[in-house]
Amino acid sequence: MKKVDHIGIAVKDMKVALPYYIETLGLKLLDIEEVESQKVKVAFIDAGNCKLELLEPIGEEGPISKFLEKRGEGIHHIAFGVTDIRKRLKELEEKGVQLLQKEPKPGAGGAEVAFIHPKSSLGVLYELCDKGERG
Amino acid sequence: MKKVDHIGIAVKDMKVALPYYIETLGLKLLDIEEVESQKVKVAFIDAGNCKLELLEPIGEEGPISKFLEKRGEGIHHIAFGVTDIRKRLKELEEKGVQLLQKEPKPGAGGAEVAFIHPKSSLGVLYELCDKGERG
Repeated sequence: MKKVDHIGIAVKDMKVALPYYIETLGLKLLDIEEVESQKVKVAFIDAGNCKLELLEPIGEEGPISKFLEKRGEGIHHIAFGVTDIRKRLKELEEKGVQLLQKEPKPGAGGAEVAFIHPKSSLGVLYELCDKGERG
Repeated sequence: MKKVDHIGIAVKDMKVALPYYIETLGLKLLDIEEVESQKVKVAFIDAGNCKLELLEPIGEEGPISKFLEKRGEGIHHIAFGVTDIRKRLKELEEKGVQLLQKEPKPGAGGAEVAFIHPKSSLGVLYELCDKGERG
């Protein structure tokens, strides 16, 4: 766990969220991309020492669509930057931590990512995010 | 909005939460204090580039007690470090942002703090946190 890489925030409509973050709060848009595996459109916002990751669902099937339906807009997860994600996941599993996936999967920005089950983390969805040498 | 100072996380019981963050995740405890005005016990955890602020309610009246009752344990707010908090609050108000308080109040670590209403921030509770020259 090196540092907080980003904070994921579920939004219904990027066309409403982006002007709030950029014009009202005065933050800077870094990048927009689609992550097909997660059924989301992602906008990275520069928050100085880390990023805010705005997540808008594509369609009604992915995890962000379900989160919005259940909880409404708001903070979705905290992502720790890590190195050697497979080793980190194995260490956590050995400590009895429940993971949402044992093998990392492709995330935004070309990272390998995996999530800790919020039941293991006192209600917080933590992502491990490995960007390799770019991390 | 200089950077993310900390991420506030509501927990029911510090005696359960601290071992998870310190022993299981391997993070470092920085400080524990009570913030009487907010009716919370606060533990700051070093997350590398920012802090995690674990919030355990004292009694049943404060905002964290109510949050836990309504939503359960989980991420409560994101705090931006700012300078000149009164000026920032005035700027946000002039842009039509709804604030939870127009005047900053005392927060943890001797900071002056104020919150943006989540209705203005697409479901996210943002804190502005001014530590003066220590910031």
